[in-house]
Amino acid sequence: MDQLTINNVWMMLCTALVFFMHLGFALLEIGLTRQKNTLNILFKNIFIITSGLLLYYLIGFNLMYPGFDENATGLLGFSGFGLDAPLNSDGLLNLDYNVGYTYWTDFLFQGMFAATAATIVSGAVAERMKLGSFIIFAILYVGLIYPIAGSWKWGGGFLQNLETPFYDFAGSTLVHSVGGWAALVAVWLLKPRIGKFKNGKLQAIPGHNIPLATAGVLILWLGWFGFNGGSVLSADPGATSITLVTTCLAAASGGLLAFIVSTIRYKNYDLTMFLNGILGGLVGITAGADQMSPTDAIVIGAIAGVLIVFAISFIDKLKLDDPVGAIAVHLICGIWGTLAVGIFGNLASWNQFYSQLIGVFCYAALCIPASFLIIYFLKISIGIRVSEKEEMEGLDSHEHGMDAYPDFRLNEH
Amino acid sequence: MDQLTINNVWMMLCTALVFFMHLGFALLEIGLTRQKNTLNILFKNIFIITSGLLLYYLIGFNLMYPGFDENATGLLGFSGFGLDAPLNSDGLLNLDYNVGYTYWTDFLFQGMFAATAATIVSGAVAERMKLGSFIIFAILYVGLIYPIAGSWKWGGGFLQNLETPFYDFAGSTLVHSVGGWAALVAVWLLKPRIGKFKNGKLQAIPGHNIPLATAGVLILWLGWFGFNGGSVLSADPGATSITLVTTCLAAASGGLLAFIVSTIRYKNYDLTMFLNGILGGLVGITAGADQMSPTDAIVIGAIAGVLIVFAISFIDKLKLDDPVGAIAVHLICGIWGTLAVGIFGNLASWNQFYSQLIGVFCYAALCIPASFLIIYFLKISIGIRVSEKEEMEGLDSHEHGMDAYPDFRLNEH
Amino acid sequence: MDQLTINNVWMMLCTALVFFMHLGFALLEIGLTRQKNTLNILFKNIFIITSGLLLYYLIGFNLMYPGFDENATGLLGFSGFGLDAPLNSDGLLNLDYNVGYTYWTDFLFQGMFAATAATIVSGAVAERMKLGSFIIFAILYVGLIYPIAGSWKWGGGFLQNLETPFYDFAGSTLVHSVGGWAALVAVWLLKPRIGKFKNGKLQAIPGHNIPLATAGVLILWLGWFGFNGGSVLSADPGATSITLVTTCLAAASGGLLAFIVSTIRYKNYDLTMFLNGILGGLVGITAGADQMSPTDAIVIGAIAGVLIVFAISFIDKLKLDDPVGAIAVHLICGIWGTLAVGIFGNLASWNQFYSQLIGVFCYAALCIPASFLIIYFLKISIGIRVSEKEEMEGLDSHEHGMDAYPDFRLNEH
Repeated sequence: MDQLTINNVWMMLCTALVFFMHLGFALLEIGLTRQKNTLNILFKNIFIITSGLLLYYLIGFNLMYPGFDENATGLLGFSGFGLDAPLNSDGLLNLDYNVGYTYWTDFLFQGMFAATAATIVSGAVAERMKLGSFIIFAILYVGLIYPIAGSWKWGGGFLQNLETPFYDFAGSTLVHSVGGWAALVAVWLLKPRIGKFKNGKLQAIPGHNIPLATAGVLILWLGWFGFNGGSVLSADPGATSITLVTTCLAAASGGLLAFIVSTIRYKNYDLTMFLNGILGGLVGITAGADQMSPTDAIVIGAIAGVLIVFAISFIDKLKLDDPVGAIAVHLICGIWGTLAVGIFGNLASWNQFYSQLIGVFCYAALCIPASFLIIYFLKISIGIRVSEKEEMEGLDSHEHGMDAYPDFRLNEH
Repeated sequence: MDQLTINNVWMMLCTALVFFMHLGFALLEIGLTRQKNTLNILFKNIFIITSGLLLYYLIGFNLMYPGFDENATGLLGFSGFGLDAPLNSDGLLNLDYNVGYTYWTDFLFQGMFAATAATIVSGAVAERMKLGSFIIFAILYVGLIYPIAGSWKWGGGFLQNLETPFYDFAGSTLVHSVGGWAALVAVWLLKPRIGKFKNGKLQAIPGHNIPLATAGVLILWLGWFGFNGGSVLSADPGATSITLVTTCLAAASGGLLAFIVSTIRYKNYDLTMFLNGILGGLVGITAGADQMSPTDAIVIGAIAGVLIVFAISFIDKLKLDDPVGAIAVHLICGIWGTLAVGIFGNLASWNQFYSQLIGVFCYAALCIPASFLIIYFLKISIGIRVSEKEEMEGLDSHEHGMDAYPDFRLNEH
Repeated sequence: MDQLTINNVWMMLCTALVFFMHLGFALLEIGLTRQKNTLNILFKNIFIITSGLLLYYLIGFNLMYPGFDENATGLLGFSGFGLDAPLNSDGLLNLDYNVGYTYWTDFLFQGMFAATAATIVSGAVAERMKLGSFIIFAILYVGLIYPIAGSWKWGGGFLQNLETPFYDFAGSTLVHSVGGWAALVAVWLLKPRIGKFKNGKLQAIPGHNIPLATAGVLILWLGWFGFNGGSVLSADPGATSITLVTTCLAAASGGLLAFIVSTIRYKNYDLTMFLNGILGGLVGITAGADQMSPTDAIVIGAIAGVLIVFAISFIDKLKLDDPVGAIAVHLICGIWGTLAVGIFGNLASWNQFYSQLIGVFCYAALCIPASFLIIYFLKISIGIRVSEKEEMEGLDSHEHGMDAYPDFRLNEH
């Protein structure tokens, strides 16, 4: 009982920290975009966390973790709508599914993860996607695709049952790449914002509130204490504390390397590159945070930081317009972190590396077509892009009839 | 000893989260009002948390929870100024009052709650109330009225001793309605802000910083993990985790329903309605968060979300000017949540519903006259409303001699 | 095992809270300065937390706490670069150094503290120090001076071995004064910002974003739950909870007294004085937070609050330009809190007071020359102050090629 209580306290507080990441994402996304689309981004983020929890209650949790119902049947072992597993009075399942914390904590922790995948897309499509289309996309992606993706590994599916099982500790692939692939597809289908490429030449569109973007990154880092620390699924002292150490060291080295490389390359101290480097380090360490030494973590983070600088510039070259760098951070560093499990740390081996590659490809094979189908269908039906007039004047006044900062005098652009 | 330690760790961290709600309130209130009164609102919020803790130390804690002193005498069993209960070396009381965490943790957790009631009023009276009058009101309301109100139920008073005891898990009534009734009285006595009703017609006065308001709501939601989770008064795994699940699901459904209903009614995506719906759901679930199933919580939150939309419009119709929607959120949803305990969940029964009604009326019968007397006396003595010139030019420059954003060019209004 | 797990959970969450203080510092510093230097301050803060962790990994931890390596040799018992102590599988050291939490948690908690000292300096030198020089200073101060300073007391050095050992519970001296002395030296060598003193008369330079400064202070207060609560180095219920109570009460009385005294002295409600009073109370209680009664804490905080008002005005009189009040908060209140351990609470005695005085002088004798040498050497080599043109136009556009708020119209000053 005591051991359950302490594990459960840890998991509940990690859940709270992962919830708080949604504020981090919201502030980062609005900070790196223009003020005229601020309300719209906030609205999307608030929609994602609220609808995400309800969808995960309604269908996601049972779709992703079907194993606890002995009589599960049907697609993927889906065990029915809502939460109605047979519980003891202490909130534990009657079945052998007892993992050291309650059924309720399990649901809430996983539910907070579920919404994250759609949030990643939200940043990439900012400033030009129709709100109604994004809402439909988010519902389908959070409600269906994410849980199916999760079931392959965390739900005990086929990637868990490879001879050398695919390993993804806290979701470099299952969360971040799943979001990142959809971000890539969405950005490609949406086309760049007006003015981003003039005569084929890149024009920087600066973010309007860098203090809030910075606050967002530090809140995300804080949230990662819960994202990775909670993925231990218990309060085991050795496993949780080494996980926090690797997480923080990878964030630090990711940020520093992105700062150093971008300073050499671009000859100025670029704060947003520093910030994205931190996020890249965090995403990179996530797949193997519990399997790395501190030195491994620093190297993985550092490589992620270097990758960020080149990936952002490469994505620009492809004429893809990702206002917040979501593809570089979540997709590129998510893939890197997943592969790194085969290269560094306790699991390093050719077999593991091969399983990691298989995992990366399987998720690409699910997420690219799934997000393409959803977004393409939206494009040819209700449309995915706001009118040119709306884009120029801002989504806030058109879709929301309000401004984010009505007392301030603003520059038009 | 182990069980005490883990309970105490949970309660201390919940205390920290409830403390953090004061930042949430501050950001929400300034975000939904005009920039010229920003400093004034921040000042009030900072005053409330600092003075609230000291008043609760000086008098509130002993007034609200008189039961631990065997020799208590006098009004309501008031056991003396300051904190000087007989303690063991581990911070526990020598008496049979041991509730599984230390005397110090108990004081601090309850002290963080105490300040909340006045904060609710702060938002409702924003942009026109004299700071000195608000300070006197807050001292009396936090120092005297809140603890007396609390003693009726949480202090073991008569509402706890009804045949079917009145139930208020974490304070839909004891905290939120207690603040909400005072907000109603204050708004009525203060009259609307200049320009809110022109020739009897409502004029929207938009909030000046919606990102900070949104951040405030997400911080409040995070804080509610501690507000409700800590109200279990132990780290019991089943009780704490179901409480977090119901809390989050009610927040989600409250927000979504407010969004949907307001979109149908007003034909645009209203972010502030979405945000207030989340808060309404949170306040609504608070009275019975530990007694509800997830499905109950979703229904209670959803009804709260619908109520928010209609309550805000109804309060406008009454020509009451509540800049942040505090009355709709804290009073209306507080009453709704209190009554819902008799309708949904483990305690649902006619007897319970009747006890809940009695509770609601008793708190109205205390809070309306008490806040009326305080504020009316202030009105006829030192005055409660700033001069018209000060209101037009902003309280910041007049009362504080400073501006919140001196480097920004601002619109006058 | 259970006791280790719960202690470790508490310490990890305290670590997360101390990490979060870096957001608090960042927001406070930018809020109290001008918008044109916002990016620069954020950049410094992000640099400090990332480089601070890596330096502490590389050298600091082993320099500060050399005792766990039985074969330690060399300067101060430095036990080698990196983290490679012999560990059991549960993350504990094989040696008798077991302190109830894991080696990893110990490293991370202490690493979060290390970066704080440089952050204190960051605020004091804001708006005029060259970024490159600050970076070099921060690396040397965090990487070398802070760990050596820490080793004298927390590492078991000579101040720990006085007949009546010097006492500094959580770092009024070891963290706050160590940062504060360097801030004093840096401010003196840097000279005031252009326009701060016109013809010898003080000109207020108002901070550009008071809401963010206020949020910063509330985040710092929240972080102090971990800073002081974690310094118990276990989850002992009595010790942790009285520590949180004294911490919060000192913050409250510090703020209130600074508000009251400054209102009497300057005849207006000064929010920044209120905020700095809270911080002064927090720094003041930090040296003895576990040794004080609630009443002691209120008195210590109140005196700190009064000190803040007079110290800020005294520092102005000395023509020292400290934009955020770092010297008053961290140095003056750090000294006050350290001495208060000899005056109030469980340890009060003349012998203790004398040991506290010795401690204060020893840290002055280390930090003043060390920071002078570093900064003076930087001054005569690469220079420490930006050009007049850069200072007038802002460090953001010159050093970073970006603006913090490009969509807003701004006042030039």
